Amino acid sequence: MEDVLSGCTKKMKISRKMLNPDGRTVRTEDKILEVQIKKGWKEGTKITFPKEGDQTPTNIPADVVFVVKDKAHRVFKREGSDIVYTAKISLRDALCGCTVNAPTLDGRTVTVSTTDIVQPGMKRRVSGEGLPYPKRPDRRGDLLVEYEVKFPERLSQSVRDTIAQVLPRS
Amino acid sequence: MEDVLSGCTKKMKISRKMLNPDGRTVRTEDKILEVQIKKGWKEGTKITFPKEGDQTPTNIPADVVFVVKDKAHRVFKREGSDIVYTAKISLRDALCGCTVNAPTLDGRTVTVSTTDIVQPGMKRRVSGEGLPYPKRPDRRGDLLVEYEVKFPERLSQSVRDTIAQVLPRS
Repeated sequence: MEDVLSGCTKKMKISRKMLNPDGRTVRTEDKILEVQIKKGWKEGTKITFPKEGDQTPTNIPADVVFVVKDKAHRVFKREGSDIVYTAKISLRDALCGCTVNAPTLDGRTVTVSTTDIVQPGMKRRVSGEGLPYPKRPDRRGDLLVEYEVKFPERLSQSVRDTIAQVLPRS
Repeated sequence: MEDVLSGCTKKMKISRKMLNPDGRTVRTEDKILEVQIKKGWKEGTKITFPKEGDQTPTNIPADVVFVVKDKAHRVFKREGSDIVYTAKISLRDALCGCTVNAPTLDGRTVTVSTTDIVQPGMKRRVSGEGLPYPKRPDRRGDLLVEYEVKFPERLSQSVRDTIAQVLPRS
């Protein structure tokens, strides 16, 4: 994902059949192709190297096409030009308010505070901390902080009684 | 979904070109094709009527193929031969235990009780209340009761204070 944030060059080694000067026999040769990944490129983007395929005595060599695929990121999910960070919070924090320190793609931390009740699946948006837009790479998408609310495994009967008294029935 | 539970016959009207006796001119005729939907059939199942397509002076008529598509059900989601019912429960019920009356496909009600804490996204399985297996239509999949936990919109400060005292920090 960092590659998509800043753009990069990938060296790809291909192995292909080359026609010998006799015009009939072939040899196998390696070649390095440099693939330029531009800022914000999305999965499915194709890079074509014309006629870099196998040479044979009778055919025009085919094009070599690379297709961009997103590598899973350790921390973020990609959603177009937005990135999603899942913050695991306790039910107590969801009900009483909490502060989440969310990481950014470039290693900083942004603080997202809520005083409202966090509904399951709720998202908060931090503007401009996502990936560059492929067609406007000077601008970036957002970082979405998605809350995953962890319920307690068990509660004592007295705590359950208290909760049954204070929480609304519906 | 009821059609898939019991199997059914659908009458499909097609309109096709028929060759006149002169072997050169064509007329348009309607025809009713009876499509037998068997128990448990899945989306994508194909039923072929050979050579029921347009007749022309020079070609063999094509086959007419129907493809089964699931209609969205008002209450259940289909997951293969299982069906899913989403029970909306309050946070209070999720923490203190609750009883859900889940509908079945044939109009009865099954009671699903929990005394444990209901984690968000938790499912309970009611055996044999799903759809017939297409290859073993005498047996049926399950009804899955999926819980959607509804949090309160707001809580008073005193309730929040109480909750902060009794719920675990993590």
